[in-house]
Amino acid sequence: MMLTVARSIGSLSTRAPRGRVFPVEPAAWLESVRTRGAAANYQGMDGRAAEVLSTHATAHPLSDGALERALRERREFVERAFDDIEPTIERLAHEAIHERGYGKAFEAIASRWGVDLRASASGGALPTFHWARPLPWGEVYAHCVLATFAQLARELKSPAGLADVDGEPAEVVVKRFGFHAIDITPCADGRLAGLTEHILRIPPSVITARRSYAGAMFDVDEAIAAFRAVEVERLRQALANGAAPASTRFLKVGAYHFSGSQPRHEGCAAHGSDDHRAMRALLERLEALRGAIESLHDTRIAILLVGVDTDDDSIRVHVPDAQGMVSIERYVSSADLRHVTRPLPREAGKLLIRDRVAACAGTSVDDRATEGMRWLCGYLLKNNIGQIEAVHQAFGGRYPDLGHAERLIVAGDPIDEVQLRNLAFQTQFSTLEEGARDIQVGIGLLGHSHAARGLAVPVLATARFDARLPGARERAAERALRHAAAIGERHANASGPSLVVRAATVDGEGRIEFVTPASLRGLEGSVNQGHHA
Amino acid sequence: MMLTVARSIGSLSTRAPRGRVFPVEPAAWLESVRTRGAAANYQGMDGRAAEVLSTHATAHPLSDGALERALRERREFVERAFDDIEPTIERLAHEAIHERGYGKAFEAIASRWGVDLRASASGGALPTFHWARPLPWGEVYAHCVLATFAQLARELKSPAGLADVDGEPAEVVVKRFGFHAIDITPCADGRLAGLTEHILRIPPSVITARRSYAGAMFDVDEAIAAFRAVEVERLRQALANGAAPASTRFLKVGAYHFSGSQPRHEGCAAHGSDDHRAMRALLERLEALRGAIESLHDTRIAILLVGVDTDDDSIRVHVPDAQGMVSIERYVSSADLRHVTRPLPREAGKLLIRDRVAACAGTSVDDRATEGMRWLCGYLLKNNIGQIEAVHQAFGGRYPDLGHAERLIVAGDPIDEVQLRNLAFQTQFSTLEEGARDIQVGIGLLGHSHAARGLAVPVLATARFDARLPGARERAAERALRHAAAIGERHANASGPSLVVRAATVDGEGRIEFVTPASLRGLEGSVNQGHHA
Repeated sequence: MMLTVARSIGSLSTRAPRGRVFPVEPAAWLESVRTRGAAANYQGMDGRAAEVLSTHATAHPLSDGALERALRERREFVERAFDDIEPTIERLAHEAIHERGYGKAFEAIASRWGVDLRASASGGALPTFHWARPLPWGEVYAHCVLATFAQLARELKSPAGLADVDGEPAEVVVKRFGFHAIDITPCADGRLAGLTEHILRIPPSVITARRSYAGAMFDVDEAIAAFRAVEVERLRQALANGAAPASTRFLKVGAYHFSGSQPRHEGCAAHGSDDHRAMRALLERLEALRGAIESLHDTRIAILLVGVDTDDDSIRVHVPDAQGMVSIERYVSSADLRHVTRPLPREAGKLLIRDRVAACAGTSVDDRATEGMRWLCGYLLKNNIGQIEAVHQAFGGRYPDLGHAERLIVAGDPIDEVQLRNLAFQTQFSTLEEGARDIQVGIGLLGHSHAARGLAVPVLATARFDARLPGARERAAERALRHAAAIGERHANASGPSLVVRAATVDGEGRIEFVTPASLRGLEGSVNQGHHA
Repeated sequence: MMLTVARSIGSLSTRAPRGRVFPVEPAAWLESVRTRGAAANYQGMDGRAAEVLSTHATAHPLSDGALERALRERREFVERAFDDIEPTIERLAHEAIHERGYGKAFEAIASRWGVDLRASASGGALPTFHWARPLPWGEVYAHCVLATFAQLARELKSPAGLADVDGEPAEVVVKRFGFHAIDITPCADGRLAGLTEHILRIPPSVITARRSYAGAMFDVDEAIAAFRAVEVERLRQALANGAAPASTRFLKVGAYHFSGSQPRHEGCAAHGSDDHRAMRALLERLEALRGAIESLHDTRIAILLVGVDTDDDSIRVHVPDAQGMVSIERYVSSADLRHVTRPLPREAGKLLIRDRVAACAGTSVDDRATEGMRWLCGYLLKNNIGQIEAVHQAFGGRYPDLGHAERLIVAGDPIDEVQLRNLAFQTQFSTLEEGARDIQVGIGLLGHSHAARGLAVPVLATARFDARLPGARERAAERALRHAAAIGERHANASGPSLVVRAATVDGEGRIEFVTPASLRGLEGSVNQGHHA
């Protein structure tokens, strides 16, 4: 079993790429974008970009010009990196026919994406060209997507503008407003893949945990474990300082999604595209977690329910009331706020948001007890107005791809360094069957669009590790390889080109590295023999 | 998918059984055992019992007569309950042929095991008798095994003698000697299924967690989570009391196993029946856990490595040295201690154990720093001498079934209420693939012996829940049903009788209950539709 995998994923070299993943040097490309202006880049997509841009030429007073620009450039840069792969591989395939050989193509792929296809050929020799037996170019494509994703994850950083709130570090402000940890669970749907950076615009420094599940249906036991990881350190520090721990709280945010324009078809599939069912199920789970932690540790956590309209990334924030109770009926809509604050000066707009949030909570604007949560809700709503503006500027009223259009599947642990809508279908494992089912769903969704284009679905099995822990990297590698192997078992295609191309990576705080069974010294024996009693 | 499961596992009624699982009333049966004497019961097994008993007629000075008796009676009672099933079902099958109908058999099975087979027939009608189409009696057998196991888990209690150490509650003594929690990981092998109660004789009150893994290869992240669960409460209480937490430690025990007589064949399959590999791998993992907790929380836990010889349940305790370091070469053997302490008075025997343990640790017998760990090692060694004595008395030098002879598979969470060697192949899930592989191994092992006897392999998918937590029971039921369904998918037999019979239970602190998809109100919809994004 592992030998098959070795052959299959051995084709990704683990050495540093000779060339770059990117079509052009990032700096040069960004410069050219700046020179030509952003609108020009999107003119071609549906012809509406410039028109929309002209009608909304005046920036919304609550949007942050520098941050908008940085996020847009990042998005365009990432999209370009992926968009470029298919035509390039197609061109190389045509050239190989002309050349009657693969030498140039292999060289180009190795230098551009760092993918060494010779490693997969026996003895490192180039396969012999034959017009009737072409290379499985669809698999080559998938390897290049995986390499691109990994390299972007390594190299891209969050825009600096995210990290600040009015000139102060966001984590300081968030803590002052009463939260020592924010743990976010979105749905695994690729349309939420830009949740923290683009939609909510929370910097990574503020988020202690982020795991996606189909339908945002997180496992309560795992969420309790995430709470305890934070809590042990908090209590230990308080004891070390000889002081009571601060009265700040752990906040669990759950994000469901829906489609404003096609509620019955483009909502959350896990909940039958029924947004009432999606929010009710998620709220129940958030309340179950709060109840569990209260019963087990006599500690009250804060919960927050957020809904995302995947048409235009606008959000609903279900502001908790003075008792911390959340209602599915009671929320503030960022889309509404965007309209009503447009004509107002910036400060007046912020005051209006503050009033709407307090009204939703049913408290006065200077109620001390609810101040922290109300501030946080207002912060998310204001941030999101910038995102809706960005979507409107780039695509008109809503995204052209309302449904799924993910480019790869990320399975195992989350990779959040490359945040972008519809980039990756991310599925985190909690149980034997949930994991298998989510991957099945992902392969079904991507397989449809990929097979039509002759492409294999790229699947990245990844495992995070804490570099401080002895042996953690090796254990993560073993886990990622096991996941990759299991995905292979279910989706192996006995004859013909593979429908799925897998790779395994380990992730030491953003340092994504590819691993192969051969790269695990001393582990092969136990993996090959299987761990059985 | 779930509908198939519903049909298949719906045949176990969830109502209380009309009759009893046990062949006779427990009290009456135990009384009869007492009257006839224990040896008589085992005379028939290989003819050696009485002979052995007579040569070892003098009890070992370190064994505890009352506890030995209680444990032996429990063991015999459990064995009798299971041994009785196959001949009874066979007799009922013969009677059905005579009667040309199933009425009496169904009545007998319902009244004796609480298994209502009519529930699985359409409309509750009895299947029509036909000589050439017999009932799948091998499946009926498996249902009765599952019902028996669940009822024993509900009704059996640990013998009272376990809970005390020289008249004091064991948990008080263990804490005084420096341990506030003991977390044990044995191998999933059924021959270790009696580890805590029979082999080490630690009462449940002392054990905070026990999870089995193939090869005892526990997941470090899960073990960290188990540590944190205990640590949060300990720190919280210290803060509430305004005092520093006590200097007691968290102890992680790992138990590997080997076969003294057939080391190359009857050792741990996960480690290629190589005891050096088994201990080295487990020690590495224990050290990785200690290192991880030290790095993450600046707290040092204690680790202990124990080896079990599955021939006769004797143990090796790898006593840590003054620095807490464990060596695979350095251990005290209970088999040796049993011999050398036999001629000594009880107190002298205990002193000898104390000396041997101190010598192994490389410390003096009154070294304060290592006193707690040395006491614990001596406690386990002394307890185990009683167990070796019990094995010798019942079976001569060693068990007649050196290899696997499990009666069922328990998958998901552990069920430790019924502790007995070779009773259940227990496999706890941690990851997608480990779980699947372990179950596969278990079904392979049991399938072999069961198929030869025309019996289906009973598999119990079970999920624990904390009754204090809102919704926890429903979530556990959903989890157990999902596991049962997944096992079914892999082992469904399209035509002919099933090779595997599955049931799902939830376990609220020892209150085992069967669940069926129908018993989960409101959940069917989401289960049938699949949770996908």
